[in-house]
Amino acid sequence: MTTAQRSHRVVGTRPVRPDGVEKVTGRAGYSADTRLPGMLYGRLKRAPHGHARILSIDTSKAEALPGVRSVITAADFPGDREEMIRTMRGHTTRKWFQDMIMASDKVLHYGHAVAAVCATDPHIAEDALDLIEVEYEPLPPVLDVLEAMADGAPILHEELRTVTMLGRGMPGAPINDNPSNVVSHMPLEKGDPDGGFEDSDIVIEREFRTGMAHQGYIEPQSAVADWGPDGKLTVWASSQGAFNFRDQLAVILQIPTAQITVVPTEIGGGFGGKLYMYVEPIAALFSQRTGRPVKVTLSREEVLTATGPTSGTYVRVKIGAKRDGTLLAGEAELAYEAGSHPPSPVAGGCMTVFGPYDIPNERVDGYDVVLNKPKVSSYHAPGACQPTLAVESVLDEIAEELGIEPMELRLRNAAREGTRVLDGRAYPKIGAVDVMEAVRNSEHYRSELGGEYQGRGVAIGYWYNGGGEGTATASINADGTVSLIFGSVDIGGQRASLAMHMAEAMGIPYEDVRPHVVDTESIGYTGLTAGSATTFKTGWAVYKLAQELQGKLQGRAARIWDVPSEQVEYRADATIHGPPDEDGAARSFTFKELAGQLPGTGGNIAAQADSNETTWGPSFAGHIVDVEVDPATGKVDILRYTTVQDVGTAVHPSYVEGQMQGGASQGAGMALSEEYIYDEDGRLRNASLLDYRMPTTVDLPMVETVLVEVPNPGHPYGVRGVGEVPIVPPLGAIANALHDATGVRMRHLPLSPERVLEALGEI
Amino acid sequence: MTTAQRSHRVVGTRPVRPDGVEKVTGRAGYSADTRLPGMLYGRLKRAPHGHARILSIDTSKAEALPGVRSVITAADFPGDREEMIRTMRGHTTRKWFQDMIMASDKVLHYGHAVAAVCATDPHIAEDALDLIEVEYEPLPPVLDVLEAMADGAPILHEELRTVTMLGRGMPGAPINDNPSNVVSHMPLEKGDPDGGFEDSDIVIEREFRTGMAHQGYIEPQSAVADWGPDGKLTVWASSQGAFNFRDQLAVILQIPTAQITVVPTEIGGGFGGKLYMYVEPIAALFSQRTGRPVKVTLSREEVLTATGPTSGTYVRVKIGAKRDGTLLAGEAELAYEAGSHPPSPVAGGCMTVFGPYDIPNERVDGYDVVLNKPKVSSYHAPGACQPTLAVESVLDEIAEELGIEPMELRLRNAAREGTRVLDGRAYPKIGAVDVMEAVRNSEHYRSELGGEYQGRGVAIGYWYNGGGEGTATASINADGTVSLIFGSVDIGGQRASLAMHMAEAMGIPYEDVRPHVVDTESIGYTGLTAGSATTFKTGWAVYKLAQELQGKLQGRAARIWDVPSEQVEYRADATIHGPPDEDGAARSFTFKELAGQLPGTGGNIAAQADSNETTWGPSFAGHIVDVEVDPATGKVDILRYTTVQDVGTAVHPSYVEGQMQGGASQGAGMALSEEYIYDEDGRLRNASLLDYRMPTTVDLPMVETVLVEVPNPGHPYGVRGVGEVPIVPPLGAIANALHDATGVRMRHLPLSPERVLEALGEI
Repeated sequence: MTTAQRSHRVVGTRPVRPDGVEKVTGRAGYSADTRLPGMLYGRLKRAPHGHARILSIDTSKAEALPGVRSVITAADFPGDREEMIRTMRGHTTRKWFQDMIMASDKVLHYGHAVAAVCATDPHIAEDALDLIEVEYEPLPPVLDVLEAMADGAPILHEELRTVTMLGRGMPGAPINDNPSNVVSHMPLEKGDPDGGFEDSDIVIEREFRTGMAHQGYIEPQSAVADWGPDGKLTVWASSQGAFNFRDQLAVILQIPTAQITVVPTEIGGGFGGKLYMYVEPIAALFSQRTGRPVKVTLSREEVLTATGPTSGTYVRVKIGAKRDGTLLAGEAELAYEAGSHPPSPVAGGCMTVFGPYDIPNERVDGYDVVLNKPKVSSYHAPGACQPTLAVESVLDEIAEELGIEPMELRLRNAAREGTRVLDGRAYPKIGAVDVMEAVRNSEHYRSELGGEYQGRGVAIGYWYNGGGEGTATASINADGTVSLIFGSVDIGGQRASLAMHMAEAMGIPYEDVRPHVVDTESIGYTGLTAGSATTFKTGWAVYKLAQELQGKLQGRAARIWDVPSEQVEYRADATIHGPPDEDGAARSFTFKELAGQLPGTGGNIAAQADSNETTWGPSFAGHIVDVEVDPATGKVDILRYTTVQDVGTAVHPSYVEGQMQGGASQGAGMALSEEYIYDEDGRLRNASLLDYRMPTTVDLPMVETVLVEVPNPGHPYGVRGVGEVPIVPPLGAIANALHDATGVRMRHLPLSPERVLEALGEI
Repeated sequence: MTTAQRSHRVVGTRPVRPDGVEKVTGRAGYSADTRLPGMLYGRLKRAPHGHARILSIDTSKAEALPGVRSVITAADFPGDREEMIRTMRGHTTRKWFQDMIMASDKVLHYGHAVAAVCATDPHIAEDALDLIEVEYEPLPPVLDVLEAMADGAPILHEELRTVTMLGRGMPGAPINDNPSNVVSHMPLEKGDPDGGFEDSDIVIEREFRTGMAHQGYIEPQSAVADWGPDGKLTVWASSQGAFNFRDQLAVILQIPTAQITVVPTEIGGGFGGKLYMYVEPIAALFSQRTGRPVKVTLSREEVLTATGPTSGTYVRVKIGAKRDGTLLAGEAELAYEAGSHPPSPVAGGCMTVFGPYDIPNERVDGYDVVLNKPKVSSYHAPGACQPTLAVESVLDEIAEELGIEPMELRLRNAAREGTRVLDGRAYPKIGAVDVMEAVRNSEHYRSELGGEYQGRGVAIGYWYNGGGEGTATASINADGTVSLIFGSVDIGGQRASLAMHMAEAMGIPYEDVRPHVVDTESIGYTGLTAGSATTFKTGWAVYKLAQELQGKLQGRAARIWDVPSEQVEYRADATIHGPPDEDGAARSFTFKELAGQLPGTGGNIAAQADSNETTWGPSFAGHIVDVEVDPATGKVDILRYTTVQDVGTAVHPSYVEGQMQGGASQGAGMALSEEYIYDEDGRLRNASLLDYRMPTTVDLPMVETVLVEVPNPGHPYGVRGVGEVPIVPPLGAIANALHDATGVRMRHLPLSPERVLEALGEI
C-alpha cells in the first residue's frame, strides 16, 4: 500500500531486476564461485581462549606436511608495529586492522585467528592447522560491558587511553594516562536537561540490556587473491564496498592503492557485516608468497565466532514530562561493546536515541568499550535499535502513568521540520508525524485484540540516512540502449533502482538501460553500499549523468542540423527538437533515431558524473506488533506485524517493502531469540545456526507494509534511504507488546523463553 | 637517434612498460588462456573447394557422436536473409559478416567454413567434423584480379552490382544491372592530367603486380563466449577493438548492443588482421544453445587459410615530368583483390599513391574486386605499399632517364604544408622534406656499396593517419597514485604511452600512473586500435582528462583554503598554489599532499574525457636498403636497412623504433618471399609457416632507425601516428635496390628466387 499519487513514469513501478535470472538460475557469481587455474586454498587456525597471551607459535610441522605451501602468523604482516601503536589512540589504524585479522601478541576473543595455512587442497590446509603448536598464557576474560568499564577490569590493550570524542567524531587528547577498556566517551547535550527534569511532573528512569547479535547474511566471507610478480594484486571479494576493501588492503599490505584491483562479486547479504575484511589480506599474503591465486573461505562457525556482529549494550534512559504529556527532558547513558577493537556503533545510538521527538532538553553520554568478544561491525542503522528499545519502553510507561493513549503521546511530541537534533542540525522536511498518524489510523492499530496472554505494542524509530561519494558512467549505444556503469556494490537492488533513475531522467524505457557493477579499476571512487545511502547518492550521480548525456545529445543534434545548440531541446519524452528547417518543417529526433546517427556524426556519446551529497533524508518508521505469550514455556509468538515507514519516494516499491520486511524480521530476532552465549572462560557456546536462533518463515507472519511517501527535497525524485530504519523499532515494539500481553516490563533482551518464564514467575 | 631537443619531462623517455613483467613471466592473459568452468570447445569444418555450391549438409552423424553438444551451419544464424541481401549493395552488411564467418549457399574460397561442432573436448569436436557430410557442386574459381574483372568471369555474388564510390566513401547507385565481381569503382582527379602529360618531356607508364600477404601475427584467433539464460553475452576476445567486436556481434546475432560485453584480452599482434571476427559469433551461438561457456580457437593453418590477409593487386602507374625533373602529371589504376567479400583497402591506395609529392595534375581509378580467396583485412597502412612500389619504381626510372640523382628528383617534387591531396584536403605542417633530406644526408645513403650483384634502393612512403573516438577515465587515489582507465586495446604500448601522457600533463612521476585497459561495460565508446590513431586520439582524451583533474583539484584546494577557485593555480611541477593566508604565509600543496586530503574534504576525485579528433597528422618515411643477389639461386639478401621517419614527437622512442623496425621487416617479407600460392582449382598450397615464408631474424640485418621529429600541431605533444607508414616504402626500395644490383626492373612481387632467377635469365 502506498499513500502518494505517482508523478513519475518509471520511478515507482516494479520492473524485473536485471540480475534476477542469473540469481534464480544459479549463474550469478558469488565470491566463493571464483576459481582460477592453479588456485591454492587457505584456512585459519583459531584460538581456544577468550583472552590469552601468545607465548610461541611453532609452524614447522604444518610446513612439513605434503601439500602445504605456506604458513603465516601475524609476524608476516608488513609494517612497523611500534609506529602503528603510536598512531592508534582513538583511531582505527593499521594495527587495529591487522590485529583484528590475526592476533599478534595477545588473543582478544575466542576464535581469534592466530595463524593460517595455505595448501593445494582445503582438506590438507585443515589437517595442517592441527599441526601448528601454539603456547598460550590464559588471561581472565572480560565479557560484560559494565565490568569492562570498571576499575580493576582485565585490560585488553595496555596502550589504550580513553579520549573524549569531539565534534565530527574526531578524538581529543587522552583524558588521563591510565590503561582502560573505555576507548572513548562521547558527550552530547542541548538545552538545560537538569532544569527540564526539575520542571517535569513525572520522571521515569530505567536500565536496559541487549545482547550481541549477528547480521545473519547467507553468504560466508570468501575471497580469492592473485598477486602478480609485478606486484599487482587482484582480489575477488564479497564486500559492501570494493573501494573500501582496496583502500584497507593498501594500508594493511603497505602497497600503493593503484596497484590493487578489487573485483566485487555478487554478495549474499551484508547488512553492515561486510565492511571489514577477514580473509582478503590473508589470501593476498599467501598469493604473494606462493605466486599462485589463493582462495580463503570461512565456514558458518567461523562467521559466527569471529566476524563482526552488532554490539551488546547497556542503556540507561531517563525522561521527564509534564502532566499533559509534553516531554521536557531526556537523558541517556549508552555503553556499547566494541568487541576486541573499536569502534562500536555507540555514536549511532547517541545521534538517534531521542530522534523521533522534539524534546527541548537532552543529554547523552556514549561509551565505546572493548572486551573479549569479536570486533563488532555495523548492522542496519548501527546502534539505533538498542536505545530506541529504552526510550519507547519508557514512553509507554509514561503514557500509562499519565493515562494518555500511547500514539497520542508520541504525536504530541513528534519531531518536525526545524526540530534540532543533538548534533546541532535542524531537520529538513520529514515524515515523523505522517508516519505516526498512519500508525494510529491503520486498520491494524484500530483492530481488536483480546485473547489471554495476547498484547500489542508500538514503537517509533529514526535513522538519519547519510550521503557520500558515488560515481556513474554511461554510454549511449547506436541501437538506443544505454550502458550504465557504477561502482556501488549491488546488495539490495541498486542495478534496478539506478537503471530506473536513468530511464526516468532520460525518458526512455527501463529495459533499454543495462546497469553494470564494475571493479575498482573501471570507475571513479565510490563509497560503501551502506547506511541506506546508495540509491540516494549514486542515484544523484545517475541523475546528473543523464543531464550530461542530454546536453551532449543536444549538441550533437545541433551539429547535425547545423543550428546553435541553445536552439535544441531534449524533452521529457526522449525526443530532441530543433528550430524549423528552411522550408518551415519541424525538425526532431527520437532518442533511438539520434542514437543511431551518433557513430557517423562525431562518434558515440559517453559521460561521467559523480556526487558527494551532504544533504540528508531522515526517515522514520512506526511498527505495530501483536504477540501471544505461552505462559507454560515462556515462548513469545508474533501474531501480526505491520511496518509503517516514510520512504521518501519508493523507487521500486517491491524492494522497499522487502527492506521493511527484512529489517522487521531481523529486529524480531534480536528481540526474541538471537544472542551470543559465552561461558565464563570466554568461549562461545552457540556458534551454529541450530543454537544461534534466527527467526525463519515458521517463526514470523507475513510482515505487512505501509509506505508513507514524504519526498526528500534534497533529491530530484525525493529518495530517502529505506534500509536502515526498519530494524530500529522492533525491540521496543515487541517489549511493549509483551508488557501489554503479560503486564510485565522486561528490559533485558532477547526475550528468550527462559527469561520470559523467569519474569512471569516474578509476577 | 633522434633529431629534436626534448622540451618534455616524461614524453620522450623510455620507461619500463606496465605490462612488461606479466608478459615476460607468462602471466599475461591472452584469449586462448581464458578458461571457464564447464567450458565446451568448438571447431570449424572447412570446404575443400575454391568455389562451389552447397547442395546439402548432413550433420546427423556428427550430432550422434558421444560428447558432441551442438552442430551449427549458416542456417542457424539469426536474421532474414532476403532482407539482408536487399541492403548489401556496396556496403558491408550483416550478410557479408555472416557469409564471411560461415558459407550459406555457396563456398567462396578454399577453407571457407561450412559448419561447426561443439563438444566436451576439442578432439571429439575435431573427430565430429569428419562425420559431417557436405554435398558440393564445384564451380570454376576465379583467382586473378584482372580475370575477375573480365567479362564472362565466374561470378561470386549473383546479386552484386558495381557502384561508383562518391565522396566520403559512400556508395552511389549501381552503374548497370549486370552481375559483376567489381564491387565499386573509385574515381579521383585533380587538375588536368591529360594536359599535364601533353606538357611533359618524358612519360613513363608501367604495370605492377603484388601478391596476397598475411599480417603474420603470433596469436591465432581465439574466443570464449558465455551466453546467460537472461540473454546477456560475455565474450573474451583478442581484437583490435572490443567495442567494434561488440557492435559486430549485435548486428550478426541480432541482439541489443547493451546486452553484450566484450572483454579485451591481451593481443598477440594484429596489424589490421584483428578487425573482423571469425570465431566469436560461433562461440556465442554454441553458448546460447548449450548454456555453457564455449571456446573456439583457430589453428595456424586455419589462420592462413581463412582469415583476412592483405590484397593481391594490379597497379598501373603513368608519370609525366619535365626535363628538369618537375613532375607534371600522375595517373594510376588500382585493382585490388577483396577476397570473397568487400571491401578491399583500395581506397587507402587511391589516397596515398602520389602522397609524398606535389604533382599538379593527378587521376586515380580504384577498383574493389571480389574473387575466390579469403576476404582481406587491413594490414598496416592498408593499401598503400602496393602503389608506392609502382610510383617509386617509375620515379627511379625517370631519375635514371633524366640523369638526376634519385633523392634529388624526389626532393624537387616533395609535398609541403599546403599541398593538396586527391581528397581535396591540404597538408598541415608535415615532414616530407625533412625525411627526404635526412635520407640524403644519412651515413648509410652516403656510404660506399660496390660489390658485384649488390645494389641500393630508396623509396618514400606516406600515410595520412586518422583520429577517431577515444575515451579515458581517471581516479586520483589518496596515496597520490592515479588509476587511468581506457578502452583502447593495447597492442603496441598504449598503456605506457597513455600513462606517459597523464604523467606529463599532471607533472607527476610515470610510475604513479597505473593504466588499465577495461571491457566494453566499463568505459565509454572507444574506436579501433588501428590506423596509427590510438596514441593520438586516446592521448588527446588523456590530455583533456588531465585538464579536468587539475580543474577539480584547484576547486578542492580552494574549498580547503576557503578561497575562490580562480585564485588557485595548478602548476606544471604538480604543486597547487593559493593566495597567501591571513598572516601572509604562502599556501600550497604538492599533488600527493592534496591527494591525501581528498577523502576528508569532499571525497576522491575522478573524471572522464573523450576525444574525437578530426585533425590529421600525416607521416612520411624514407627507407634505404642494400641488397645482394645470388645469381645462382636468385635469392635476394638484405645487407643493410635504414628507416627514416617523421614521427611527430616520439612519446616512447623505443616503441617508435620497434614500430619502424617491425613495419620494415613485414614490408621486406612482402617484397621478397610472402605470397599465397593457389592451384588452378583454387586450393591454397602453402598454409603453413614452413611454406608461407615470413622473414625471421636470420633473414634480416638489424634495421637501423632515424627519428625525424616534426611535431604535429594538432596534438598537445605533437604526436603523429607511427605504426602504419613503415610498411609503405619497403617494396619500392627493395625493387629499386634489385635493379641497382642487377640492372633488372622487376614489377611482379614478391621477388622470390624463382622469379628473380627467371628475370636474370632474361638479361
